[in-house]
Amino acid sequence: MSFNTFGRVFRFTTWGESHGPAIGAVVDGCPPGLALSEADIQPWLDKRRPGTSRFTTQRREPDEVRILSGVFEGKTTGTPISLMIENVDQRSKDYSEVAKAYRPGHADYAYDAKYGFRDYRGGGRSSARETASRVAAGAVARLVIPQVCILGYVSEIGGDAIDPANFDEAEIGNNPFFCPDAAAAARWETLVDEARKDGSSLGAVVECVATGAPAGWGAPLYAKLDSELAAACMSINAVKGIEVGEGFAAARLRGEQNADPMRPGADGRPDFLANHAGGIAGGIATGQPIRLRVAFKPTSSILIPVETVTRTGEASEIMTRGRHDPCVGIRGVPVVEAMVALVLADQALLHRAQCG
Amino acid sequence: MSFNTFGRVFRFTTWGESHGPAIGAVVDGCPPGLALSEADIQPWLDKRRPGTSRFTTQRREPDEVRILSGVFEGKTTGTPISLMIENVDQRSKDYSEVAKAYRPGHADYAYDAKYGFRDYRGGGRSSARETASRVAAGAVARLVIPQVCILGYVSEIGGDAIDPANFDEAEIGNNPFFCPDAAAAARWETLVDEARKDGSSLGAVVECVATGAPAGWGAPLYAKLDSELAAACMSINAVKGIEVGEGFAAARLRGEQNADPMRPGADGRPDFLANHAGGIAGGIATGQPIRLRVAFKPTSSILIPVETVTRTGEASEIMTRGRHDPCVGIRGVPVVEAMVALVLADQALLHRAQCG
Amino acid sequence: MSFNTFGRVFRFTTWGESHGPAIGAVVDGCPPGLALSEADIQPWLDKRRPGTSRFTTQRREPDEVRILSGVFEGKTTGTPISLMIENVDQRSKDYSEVAKAYRPGHADYAYDAKYGFRDYRGGGRSSARETASRVAAGAVARLVIPQVCILGYVSEIGGDAIDPANFDEAEIGNNPFFCPDAAAAARWETLVDEARKDGSSLGAVVECVATGAPAGWGAPLYAKLDSELAAACMSINAVKGIEVGEGFAAARLRGEQNADPMRPGADGRPDFLANHAGGIAGGIATGQPIRLRVAFKPTSSILIPVETVTRTGEASEIMTRGRHDPCVGIRGVPVVEAMVALVLADQALLHRAQCG
Amino acid sequence: MSFNTFGRVFRFTTWGESHGPAIGAVVDGCPPGLALSEADIQPWLDKRRPGTSRFTTQRREPDEVRILSGVFEGKTTGTPISLMIENVDQRSKDYSEVAKAYRPGHADYAYDAKYGFRDYRGGGRSSARETASRVAAGAVARLVIPQVCILGYVSEIGGDAIDPANFDEAEIGNNPFFCPDAAAAARWETLVDEARKDGSSLGAVVECVATGAPAGWGAPLYAKLDSELAAACMSINAVKGIEVGEGFAAARLRGEQNADPMRPGADGRPDFLANHAGGIAGGIATGQPIRLRVAFKPTSSILIPVETVTRTGEASEIMTRGRHDPCVGIRGVPVVEAMVALVLADQALLHRAQCG
Repeated sequence: MSFNTFGRVFRFTTWGESHGPAIGAVVDGCPPGLALSEADIQPWLDKRRPGTSRFTTQRREPDEVRILSGVFEGKTTGTPISLMIENVDQRSKDYSEVAKAYRPGHADYAYDAKYGFRDYRGGGRSSARETASRVAAGAVARLVIPQVCILGYVSEIGGDAIDPANFDEAEIGNNPFFCPDAAAAARWETLVDEARKDGSSLGAVVECVATGAPAGWGAPLYAKLDSELAAACMSINAVKGIEVGEGFAAARLRGEQNADPMRPGADGRPDFLANHAGGIAGGIATGQPIRLRVAFKPTSSILIPVETVTRTGEASEIMTRGRHDPCVGIRGVPVVEAMVALVLADQALLHRAQCG
Repeated sequence: MSFNTFGRVFRFTTWGESHGPAIGAVVDGCPPGLALSEADIQPWLDKRRPGTSRFTTQRREPDEVRILSGVFEGKTTGTPISLMIENVDQRSKDYSEVAKAYRPGHADYAYDAKYGFRDYRGGGRSSARETASRVAAGAVARLVIPQVCILGYVSEIGGDAIDPANFDEAEIGNNPFFCPDAAAAARWETLVDEARKDGSSLGAVVECVATGAPAGWGAPLYAKLDSELAAACMSINAVKGIEVGEGFAAARLRGEQNADPMRPGADGRPDFLANHAGGIAGGIATGQPIRLRVAFKPTSSILIPVETVTRTGEASEIMTRGRHDPCVGIRGVPVVEAMVALVLADQALLHRAQCG
Repeated sequence: MSFNTFGRVFRFTTWGESHGPAIGAVVDGCPPGLALSEADIQPWLDKRRPGTSRFTTQRREPDEVRILSGVFEGKTTGTPISLMIENVDQRSKDYSEVAKAYRPGHADYAYDAKYGFRDYRGGGRSSARETASRVAAGAVARLVIPQVCILGYVSEIGGDAIDPANFDEAEIGNNPFFCPDAAAAARWETLVDEARKDGSSLGAVVECVATGAPAGWGAPLYAKLDSELAAACMSINAVKGIEVGEGFAAARLRGEQNADPMRPGADGRPDFLANHAGGIAGGIATGQPIRLRVAFKPTSSILIPVETVTRTGEASEIMTRGRHDPCVGIRGVPVVEAMVALVLADQALLHRAQCG
Repeated sequence: MSFNTFGRVFRFTTWGESHGPAIGAVVDGCPPGLALSEADIQPWLDKRRPGTSRFTTQRREPDEVRILSGVFEGKTTGTPISLMIENVDQRSKDYSEVAKAYRPGHADYAYDAKYGFRDYRGGGRSSARETASRVAAGAVARLVIPQVCILGYVSEIGGDAIDPANFDEAEIGNNPFFCPDAAAAARWETLVDEARKDGSSLGAVVECVATGAPAGWGAPLYAKLDSELAAACMSINAVKGIEVGEGFAAARLRGEQNADPMRPGADGRPDFLANHAGGIAGGIATGQPIRLRVAFKPTSSILIPVETVTRTGEASEIMTRGRHDPCVGIRGVPVVEAMVALVLADQALLHRAQCG
């Protein structure tokens, strides 16, 4: 079943394929009276935009967003906000190979198994191009929670991790990798270049920290803050894992090592002496920074031939020509940020609904 | 906002606190005509039941389930199935300490921050006791998807992992750890005993494999099969991470290493030469085994004092007396299995809705 | 598909059959800190309780509600509130006739067509007994919106309407018909008695007025306040029509007759000179009393034989023995009130979510 | 709270204002493989299109729909179908009066009370123009349920009803009123003309009959087929009442008069001797024609001055200049049909989900 809506009260619905005329998102449930224009959305899209360095796909998309509804005299009206981005650079190419055989690692076979056929042009609906719609919707979500600061970055590419001691937030915008460690960024340049030249690809880990979310946002059970974040991030193309706080490392700690002791704080709220929990306990924010890590697999589209079968069941081999990100995790940073913003905006409104 | 319902068409709603008269689940959307009695549910509850070895909490709960509705002459009617489990062993104890101060790692502070107060008896709604309701609901879900076999086990405790070479499914039921590696089980006996005697606790990793789910179940985007599984597992108490297939390891692979090549299969469907994807591509099942890993943090209730603050903001120290699991991940196995069953049953019906 | 949950953020799920051990409701999303005990719910159930006069079914059900979760030290905790009512008077009787043949006007044939079989004891899930769960849930909803006063009454039985000039709210509780017109109540006594003695039944119209809902509750489109009220009331057993404000009469008015002119009010808000709209414009409350009318068909269970067919397709005839309401609309009053309360509580929280 | 999505598995989301650049709908959950092009949608939009006679608004909108996604090589892919209709004839006019004062009967005051301000150009989101999106989505829904025939018509304008003896389906397309009675259509010409010349407006009743829906579609409780239809129809602009089958007339019948007796039918299914129920029993289709009636109030925009207040609370008077339908119920016919199609498509998929 196709479910293209995410969220409970602050919701968005995305539509569109890689090679259709346009893609878009409808944002519903947004509070009224927020100042909103295309200029509030475009910078986030520009962060995600392809073709900005040789380390991302060379598809040239201006990714200009238009607001078609829900804004009047520069302010949100409380009614649905329709956002549209035209597809411009749909390079005419021969898709007959992809139409005929399944690209391993892609959704080709699964789509055919589900729907009986598929739009094979550029991956159709399963293209990472859909994430532009999320980034646009996420820009609106940020306006709902101005008290929250969301910071994403790449912490690891191809197994080469940043050194936390080198962490410098200001560095993130200085390199094409969203890397907060200048030394790592330099190494990654070589690493990604090599993979690209080999026609191969690399995986990555994206980290995201949201500060400013007050204690209390979240829910005890099936809309737990961490559960919603996990769903949100796992729904991003190429994501295979999600951790909150210590994540899998917590499985290797003892109870006393994993505790986040509290001390009386200046403002009547506790000061936490650690944040193993990643800012969430029992599904509810503790007021500490919310920390999560997301694993992106290497781009499945590679120039190295892989064994496959055709739609009619014959043995074949395929290599995916075209303009692909050698490391799709890099452009995952603004997407993860957007999904975190969308979850938090929804939870902020849900908390207000129940608790005033 | 409290959201205690999970699922889209096959749904369940749980209710109840650790120290109330009972807990329960209402399962809605179940197909009619399935043979169902308490005897179909009880064995799964027995797997999760506390007090069965010295490695789990010594609370003695028979966890006897009653079916209060939705079954007629031994078959599901298609109307809601109400399942109730009475709380029996609510040992009278002094909760004044927990009422007064926040247990680090627990939801105590977050609940107070959200709701202004909390039911502090045994954790109230945030108690792992709620997972019994999930296991009961999951037993119904299994009947909806009889073609699927779901196998969970513990693959790691306190950082000590099983040796895949020793994997023996038959071994899982032979030890108190749901461990498929007899040698590891023997080591864990010592490991967990030591932690227990120290008043400490250990984390664990639970793996789960679902075989038999046909290619095509799932959804392209916000109800992706992996996204739903991530939400389902992350909603379990003490879970901090979730991986599908290679998970975080995929972030360290190159594209050609992570590919799952295909060969023509005997029945017209492809044979996959690997399963890095964990049985899911683009949010949709490929027909391969669905594989996931779930990280459980160490039990937060430990006998080692931790610094904390009181409700009124004074510095204090707390150690959590009571009957606690030294490694809550162990009893997480039947819970993970149940959540996987619940997601797959929902997706099976959703797929049938859209694709017939 | 079985959908037994109603509401968007303030939600309730009901379960149970006429002749099972119990029925119940789980109320989710309730704000924390509201004083709640069984004593807040029981009076509403008593209003709906069968067997209180000869004009309702003679089934004797104490309808005692138990709160199984969600309340601690007399206050709602914000977690799900499980309400259970045991079925006591399940008179042992011979259901073989109902099992074999379809009762016209009942859901018997439709259930069989949908599910392949049905729980035929007392109507199973389609029994009006389910409405007790709604009344219990509605009692909780009232606590969420204490500023709103909800008043239901019967305005018409068997085509004999009250005289609006005689309307006396105090009279509603003085007769077994929830009738605000003493003269009509006297006539109805004869009318309903005659129908009962004939083994027949009568339809009724229930009106409901909610005052105190502030301007602004509601939604522009698919969760319009009137749309939600229509769904809520049409979901009640035996209901066949719903009107808001002038309803069908508005179809016979000219624009200027149907206008609700406004004058400046004392408190800065407009005074409306009429309320043809029934307190709702464009799906959103105007602050005027919300007025609706609900049509109940005559009870389908009658002692007059009606032609029918058996499950195996043979011609037959059936008359429904048993203890039935001669006019099911009478006991519909507390049910309509409950559904209105449940919709308004949900809309109150939704409005707070979006607009603060 | 703004909820602009309708449906459970077959869902649509609408967006757009009267005077924005465009309006649209996103249809999600549509089965794959259905032949779909703009030509399947346009005829339904043309039925609803304004400016086709002097009895509807003179706004000139071509209402040309574009499919932006979800269709590949002429077939639905199972992914979201984005439909867009550009607004063309947004006559530049002076909205200062509407901006300043509230039009009685319109949503002006309620929107301001909810959101603090409103897009006052042509009613903004509350404009009946939104219903074009529903008609477009409804055209897709029809393709999902080709076995169902949906027929809507006007049965009454300004209190003047058709004579059922004159009912002629072929007549419906022969007059500008969707009137199946040629004699009534002739009378209505005079009636509506007079109202138009007076600057007044008239209400109407729309009837809709859906044949071909099999017994079994629907749900026992809160997604009852009649409950969903009631919600769907009551969400249409200007609707104030909804009846199924006998509707309010059932409240005036005795049980034996309202019974729908059954006889053995030719195909093993019962033949019903009447259809007082309107094709729905217990929320589930019986296989008989589904019949409903919808009351439209007279257009609130009239040229007769009505007392009102300004945004700043001063007494004023307003008459609504512009291009308005003298009887908005007429163009309600294709909208009611669309909503019925959308509900039935959703229920068809839901039934398949649960019952196969």
